[in-house]
Amino acid sequence: MSMSTPTSQPLGVAVIGHSFMGKAHSNAWRNVGAFYPEAPPARQAVLVGRDPLRTKEAAARYGWAEAATSWESVLERDDVHVVDICTPGESHHDIAVAALAAGKHVLVEKPLSNTVAESESMTRAAAEAATRGVHSMVGFNYRRVPALALARQLVEQGRIGEVRQVRASYLQDWLTDPTAPMTWRLRRESAGSGALGDLASHVIDQVQHITASTVTGVNGRLHTFVAERDGDAGREAVTVDDAAWATCVLSSGAIASIEVSRVAAGRKNGLSLEVFGSEGSLSFDLERLNELGVHEEHGEHAGLRRVLVTEESHPYLQAWWPPGHVLGWDATFTMQAADFLGAIAADRAPSPSFAEGLAVQRVLAAVEQSARHLGTCVDVPAEDPLEGGRA
Amino acid sequence: MSMSTPTSQPLGVAVIGHSFMGKAHSNAWRNVGAFYPEAPPARQAVLVGRDPLRTKEAAARYGWAEAATSWESVLERDDVHVVDICTPGESHHDIAVAALAAGKHVLVEKPLSNTVAESESMTRAAAEAATRGVHSMVGFNYRRVPALALARQLVEQGRIGEVRQVRASYLQDWLTDPTAPMTWRLRRESAGSGALGDLASHVIDQVQHITASTVTGVNGRLHTFVAERDGDAGREAVTVDDAAWATCVLSSGAIASIEVSRVAAGRKNGLSLEVFGSEGSLSFDLERLNELGVHEEHGEHAGLRRVLVTEESHPYLQAWWPPGHVLGWDATFTMQAADFLGAIAADRAPSPSFAEGLAVQRVLAAVEQSARHLGTCVDVPAEDPLEGGRA
Amino acid sequence: MSMSTPTSQPLGVAVIGHSFMGKAHSNAWRNVGAFYPEAPPARQAVLVGRDPLRTKEAAARYGWAEAATSWESVLERDDVHVVDICTPGESHHDIAVAALAAGKHVLVEKPLSNTVAESESMTRAAAEAATRGVHSMVGFNYRRVPALALARQLVEQGRIGEVRQVRASYLQDWLTDPTAPMTWRLRRESAGSGALGDLASHVIDQVQHITASTVTGVNGRLHTFVAERDGDAGREAVTVDDAAWATCVLSSGAIASIEVSRVAAGRKNGLSLEVFGSEGSLSFDLERLNELGVHEEHGEHAGLRRVLVTEESHPYLQAWWPPGHVLGWDATFTMQAADFLGAIAADRAPSPSFAEGLAVQRVLAAVEQSARHLGTCVDVPAEDPLEGGRA
Amino acid sequence: MSMSTPTSQPLGVAVIGHSFMGKAHSNAWRNVGAFYPEAPPARQAVLVGRDPLRTKEAAARYGWAEAATSWESVLERDDVHVVDICTPGESHHDIAVAALAAGKHVLVEKPLSNTVAESESMTRAAAEAATRGVHSMVGFNYRRVPALALARQLVEQGRIGEVRQVRASYLQDWLTDPTAPMTWRLRRESAGSGALGDLASHVIDQVQHITASTVTGVNGRLHTFVAERDGDAGREAVTVDDAAWATCVLSSGAIASIEVSRVAAGRKNGLSLEVFGSEGSLSFDLERLNELGVHEEHGEHAGLRRVLVTEESHPYLQAWWPPGHVLGWDATFTMQAADFLGAIAADRAPSPSFAEGLAVQRVLAAVEQSARHLGTCVDVPAEDPLEGGRA
Repeated sequence: MSMSTPTSQPLGVAVIGHSFMGKAHSNAWRNVGAFYPEAPPARQAVLVGRDPLRTKEAAARYGWAEAATSWESVLERDDVHVVDICTPGESHHDIAVAALAAGKHVLVEKPLSNTVAESESMTRAAAEAATRGVHSMVGFNYRRVPALALARQLVEQGRIGEVRQVRASYLQDWLTDPTAPMTWRLRRESAGSGALGDLASHVIDQVQHITASTVTGVNGRLHTFVAERDGDAGREAVTVDDAAWATCVLSSGAIASIEVSRVAAGRKNGLSLEVFGSEGSLSFDLERLNELGVHEEHGEHAGLRRVLVTEESHPYLQAWWPPGHVLGWDATFTMQAADFLGAIAADRAPSPSFAEGLAVQRVLAAVEQSARHLGTCVDVPAEDPLEGGRA
Repeated sequence: MSMSTPTSQPLGVAVIGHSFMGKAHSNAWRNVGAFYPEAPPARQAVLVGRDPLRTKEAAARYGWAEAATSWESVLERDDVHVVDICTPGESHHDIAVAALAAGKHVLVEKPLSNTVAESESMTRAAAEAATRGVHSMVGFNYRRVPALALARQLVEQGRIGEVRQVRASYLQDWLTDPTAPMTWRLRRESAGSGALGDLASHVIDQVQHITASTVTGVNGRLHTFVAERDGDAGREAVTVDDAAWATCVLSSGAIASIEVSRVAAGRKNGLSLEVFGSEGSLSFDLERLNELGVHEEHGEHAGLRRVLVTEESHPYLQAWWPPGHVLGWDATFTMQAADFLGAIAADRAPSPSFAEGLAVQRVLAAVEQSARHLGTCVDVPAEDPLEGGRA
Repeated sequence: MSMSTPTSQPLGVAVIGHSFMGKAHSNAWRNVGAFYPEAPPARQAVLVGRDPLRTKEAAARYGWAEAATSWESVLERDDVHVVDICTPGESHHDIAVAALAAGKHVLVEKPLSNTVAESESMTRAAAEAATRGVHSMVGFNYRRVPALALARQLVEQGRIGEVRQVRASYLQDWLTDPTAPMTWRLRRESAGSGALGDLASHVIDQVQHITASTVTGVNGRLHTFVAERDGDAGREAVTVDDAAWATCVLSSGAIASIEVSRVAAGRKNGLSLEVFGSEGSLSFDLERLNELGVHEEHGEHAGLRRVLVTEESHPYLQAWWPPGHVLGWDATFTMQAADFLGAIAADRAPSPSFAEGLAVQRVLAAVEQSARHLGTCVDVPAEDPLEGGRA
Repeated sequence: MSMSTPTSQPLGVAVIGHSFMGKAHSNAWRNVGAFYPEAPPARQAVLVGRDPLRTKEAAARYGWAEAATSWESVLERDDVHVVDICTPGESHHDIAVAALAAGKHVLVEKPLSNTVAESESMTRAAAEAATRGVHSMVGFNYRRVPALALARQLVEQGRIGEVRQVRASYLQDWLTDPTAPMTWRLRRESAGSGALGDLASHVIDQVQHITASTVTGVNGRLHTFVAERDGDAGREAVTVDDAAWATCVLSSGAIASIEVSRVAAGRKNGLSLEVFGSEGSLSFDLERLNELGVHEEHGEHAGLRRVLVTEESHPYLQAWWPPGHVLGWDATFTMQAADFLGAIAADRAPSPSFAEGLAVQRVLAAVEQSARHLGTCVDVPAEDPLEGGRA
């Protein structure tokens, strides 16, 4: 099977899933052409969901040409070149592997999957597909936050010297209230984990990306503050973590501390990063996503500079609005779509790859293992993902 | 001619103009259905511009079914029900009056027009059209910033008591550099005025809206810090203001101070408002448009509360993203489009009306007049706009 | 009579007044030696107040060797070399003039006096005394806020280019509540003016100092939001302003807007300054007095830098605490005392001089005059204070 | 030997040590009477230091009646009732134990001592002295920061519900530069530990105090980023930590994460605390020590409230300055002195006691032990300090 990219036609896109993430990704495909004229054109071919009525309605609202209820059928369509998987994590593996086999470029919303084993399998499939010119990417959308992309650039340019400490957190508060009800997200069998998988995955990807380095060992702790909640069938044990902590050793020699929580009263979507280097530091808070704090040691009267990352010269912003006209959270998905389309057109490996998604899963697994062993340091396997998988 | 709203078909929209504002409005029409499912459906019928090639390209990129070069021809189309005017101010009057006469609902980007006389004529046309069920609105998009809409609600509910002082500014810095070149925006004949018309118009509308009150008298000052700039034909006088100041008396008895500038180094899009009442205060900065500062005198340990205006219960946010997932500047146009569609569907007068746009123009004119007379206080005519126009 | 500075003995200090300002100045004299070892030693000789018992108690508490009830008697003492006047403004003139005549160095808390005429008389007395080596200074303590002193330095060094706009305010809220009682501060006959004299005087001095420029013309407005309050003798008219606004033209060509208020709910001691120049800007808020915002246009990724002004190299801080160990409001009086002592020892004219205090009074008077004439622009007399006084 | 408090005479104070901490404590004793009139009067009797000349000079500058070079001799003086130990940690034990034996009330600057064993010995001596009415306290001055004292009150009152998570850090940057020279503070034998003992001790005391709870187990990590520095005798190994991390389990069930560093570029004195409870949260940053962030879940439009902790009704502030007139870092020592004097006068056990200082030392020791064992969780001995010591 050969690469599915057409030469002159728009790339047909199918999104699988139409709830929160399906809506966010639909928004991206609807808008990518307006802000990234140089990206290859994409066409919102079909939105896939289980419920025919709701899927049809969502498709109409979100700008899709068609609605469908079977993702398998979509893989057979010639007018679909990109499959964008926005379903819950448990189905990621099967859809992704099948789509790659069918020659479709695949974007998978994070986490890559719910288990390391599945992620390894997906990574192998992606590597194989890449040999056929079929591309894949995992949806860590915060890679595209312009302020974080700028942070990455500044680190790469050595503007803050050698990175030593990263202090990171992702704090939300939607489970603060102990009377908030039980949901599938609070059961281990359906959700895999709690704040760890949902929030720490973003943080770990950022830490590895910004430092261009990998986590090699972790100390971890998990905790559930509200141990039981009321469900449809009465009182029920919460079997995932409300909060998680990790101290990570990075291959570069830096150390990163991570704290994530869903019971941090007053924090709505508080992904914060402080990156300390030998010659400066950076700071970021997702609730103010257009801003990057930059401190450079050099020069008189040093101090933390609030850079409003809305200039045309800043990453991803060459074709949006004038300076100071801030962007929203949803724009990061539009940027992600543009990057994916651009990589496909250039026949270039997109990033973050499935292998990068797998690397995050392995860190999460190590945190869980450490947490089960009094927090003692656990090594993160660093072998090549494909080799490791084949062993 | 009867009202143009169809009963079952989507409302066909034409946008006139395809540069900065045309892009922003196109974005709104492309996305309004996704976030406001209860709004009547709209269809991006046609984008109008002078240059055939560039208009066609923009139409394709921004999601329009067609491109056209004549706004007059668009007024004749049966599939166009809404005309959205995004051209420079000097053409607003003619297009708007013709479109209303043709039975099209009209949205005009602010300022309503470049002169009070034209604005009066437009306001009369709008009033007449309203008797035929044809609606009109002026595009003060900041009315829709959720934090500012919340500010309006809190004032209305008496949460900060009786408003006494408003301290407002709109500071930008794109003309800071004296070597920045001459443009049509810096010539009085083409631009009408400088920071005053461009920036103070937004501020005055906000002040009047939030306080539910009108400016009755003003002291004004205008200043041009860089008196000459290099143009295509050599050195040329700048004939509009770089900055403007006004102290406004409001019909409610409150006093508002206003400062606007295009040479405020370091401020990119800094519309800031502080509203002081007898029982509390509010504060806002457009560069952090998802936040509203709320201070209430009551209760122990008072202080300025940073409210992240991203809750489902906040204005305009019932169908966007979860709490803490911030919105961008462009979202305010989507909200504006939803409001306009909703008003059309309900056959209800949209706000801000042309009369409200005219009221802002009259305040701007009074500021200019005061500035020409050593800043002495100038009354703002408060008569009914239609009556005033007919006199 | 010759200069009173001893060569080897500590300078004996008398403070006149022991309430709020007397306490703040006492604190300064008690601590100046600890933080400014290079300043000539000062001795807390005597605290003067009307009430013998309360003055004695205050003297003991604040570290004074003695208490006294007559300021006249203090002027006769040989062990008093410095007279520091902390009484209400109405008595400043008589004490200062007598003290200067008696050969005492005089520090007068701001405002210099309640009237321009008295201030002129004091300025003449100071000029005459200076010819005898007797020094005088007015207590605009905010000149010594390290962040503001740094602001002055940066402007002087041209770091933000030519200053164009200054946006200044001093907002407090202690009169927000309309049931707050009548006091002498709200009567014109005792207080002179309201927010204008109390708060705008500080702001005007800062504006003139930071820009090294003088106000040459003003548009002013005054307003009293709560027109009557309950006093001991029943309901009584408030005869001073609750808030004041001014737009000032500076001799340098810059324009400064000023807003002051005592009814700005939620602002406790909010003196804020934004200084916009052709190459950068500065910002300051007294409620965070250890910080200066610095924006410089040059360089990549510009932004407002929060400089924590606590480094040994920053103004006034060579002998305080390590970086980041913040100072309080009271420290500014200690710095003021050190400056005054240093000037005396060096037989150098201290600043701000009485002439500088008079200049501020003249601007305040012009604001009042403008406010009485619909806000029309009023010139501020710029003649030499001594000449002007003699004319 | 009986209690040394005189009935009518001021309490005579001796401070041992005259560098950084001696200066800060001197400042407190010099000013405590001015701000705490109800505290028993104190007299600055004698300042003790090794170098006769420098001590004499410091004594004169800091307001001491006398200087001395032998702390032993001071213990014999009848006019000394309070001994305040500001020497390096290694001498704390001997001076404190001797002073207590001599019937002097003892204030020891933190850390209580450099070792757990010494701290246990001191705690036993303090308990014995207490039976004689002789009091002792350890100088965790941040207990007195008004904003932190308010935080403690709010937690105690249940305003944020049950505390679940504390996120704490103390970040400085004075060792960021790898060329900063070797000092005694970077050698284990002289300094005990690095950032851990210096900075984490403050944080741990705060965490335990604010939550009214004790750390029962910790995971720890220490790291030295700059392993060698240039000393007087050439290149030398740094044998203490530059940074430390700990995850602490509290007896209340809460979990606290702690990160401290001396290489956090851009943070000067950044002690920050975020306390998350079941009904709200608090936040604090020492670089803005007059502010407390308070979030309460209840009520509409929740958000983080910036409380300026400068009201007369706030802890410690009944007799300072008007609202908004901010205090400096040094004021916390004045408050500490007032608390100690008040406890002595009332014959009441001061807090933080030596036992509380010991408790902090035990947590630090557990962090070190955990760090030596791959970060595995180490229990903190919770036994009664005296009993534990005797075992």
